[in-house]
Amino acid sequence: MPKDHIVHAFDMELSNLEKLIVEMGGRVEMQLDKAINGLLNYDVETAKEVIADDKIIDRLELEVATKATEIFATRQPMADDLRSIVAALKISSNLERMGDYAKNISKRTITLSQIPLVSITGKSVRRMGDLVSHMMRDVLDAYVARDADKALDVIVQDHEVDQLHTSLFREILTYMMEDARNITACTHLLFIAKNVERIGDHTTNIGEQVYYIKTGNIPEEERDTADKATSVIVEKSD
Amino acid sequence: MPKDHIVHAFDMELSNLEKLIVEMGGRVEMQLDKAINGLLNYDVETAKEVIADDKIIDRLELEVATKATEIFATRQPMADDLRSIVAALKISSNLERMGDYAKNISKRTITLSQIPLVSITGKSVRRMGDLVSHMMRDVLDAYVARDADKALDVIVQDHEVDQLHTSLFREILTYMMEDARNITACTHLLFIAKNVERIGDHTTNIGEQVYYIKTGNIPEEERDTADKATSVIVEKSD
Repeated sequence: MPKDHIVHAFDMELSNLEKLIVEMGGRVEMQLDKAINGLLNYDVETAKEVIADDKIIDRLELEVATKATEIFATRQPMADDLRSIVAALKISSNLERMGDYAKNISKRTITLSQIPLVSITGKSVRRMGDLVSHMMRDVLDAYVARDADKALDVIVQDHEVDQLHTSLFREILTYMMEDARNITACTHLLFIAKNVERIGDHTTNIGEQVYYIKTGNIPEEERDTADKATSVIVEKSD
Repeated sequence: MPKDHIVHAFDMELSNLEKLIVEMGGRVEMQLDKAINGLLNYDVETAKEVIADDKIIDRLELEVATKATEIFATRQPMADDLRSIVAALKISSNLERMGDYAKNISKRTITLSQIPLVSITGKSVRRMGDLVSHMMRDVLDAYVARDADKALDVIVQDHEVDQLHTSLFREILTYMMEDARNITACTHLLFIAKNVERIGDHTTNIGEQVYYIKTGNIPEEERDTADKATSVIVEKSD
């Protein structure tokens, strides 16, 4: 009976840690969504909310680290349990960074609200944001279900985000060349697009951790190939 | 005697984990140095080496995670020991990201080697790189010595990196406005400068972890304030 009790309490602790990750993930997803809406509507109030609410995500990361450390200290987690706790630490670090990227989008939104901007890129940013939100929902589902296949599928989805990012990068460079008055605004847009792309990368990292929890291995597939923005050259046509 | 033996073996494991972190840190420092040298000399061979060697850093991160997980599973680390192991996991994640940023600098170096580039920004990039290398050496020293004050000092040093980044950002925007033919090259330079700035941020994160190992707390000081690049507006003067 006392042993059962201990096992039960341990399960509760693991389940609480998982709930914390899911809460954190849900909040980060909301932050991304608000950051993109704020950007597309030049909505400074929403942008300010995103910036302020990033603190909540930072606190949740600390809470995950504290809870995980307590479990290490008081239980002797083995095998699957041990892997889930180590993965929870890694996942929360990724989510914290994703929150930072959403905050960065909102900081730049405030800057963009003060300068005229070409509007045509809005649709591509929205599309990237929607794809990444979709990946985030899938990876959280995969995490809760411990579904390694679904986790791998998230990694594959990131290729499309990378491709969109590369073409958006090229598109924005073209606007800058067309009219030098676009340069400041477009530069911030370039970094915003990069932020969304990075959120996709971190979602992929979480997918890898879910795969690791389930299988004990990190997926072998070569990463980081579909984003060709680092090699884009656009020549000015005069 | 057998108990002594166990304690001794545990100390050895912790010490090996620490050595692995120091090795990883040294390699990342070397990667940053090579990436910056490669950039300033348009040295494509060096850039390719940096890109290829990033795999070594990725492997080291996995090795840290495996070793840490083994220690959790076979020992019951408490208090300071527990904190060092959790911190080792976080530090290795940061180092792995820093390696990715160095790789990204080198990818963009290969692109830049194909297009004409204004040379005047080289000095500022070098200066940022030197500052960040200095921070990295300090934070690894602080880690080995478990020196919380030195760790805090690294966090303070990052302000200067942020300020340099903001002024470099502004400088590069000006070049883009002066001549649209500079736009592609300057955009890649903007991202390179941002990469160096981000390596500084991650070095700061490591400083926070060193502080945490020593004190059990994360330093309270407000972060992320000196980099004002997100709010830079440069108007084209015609």
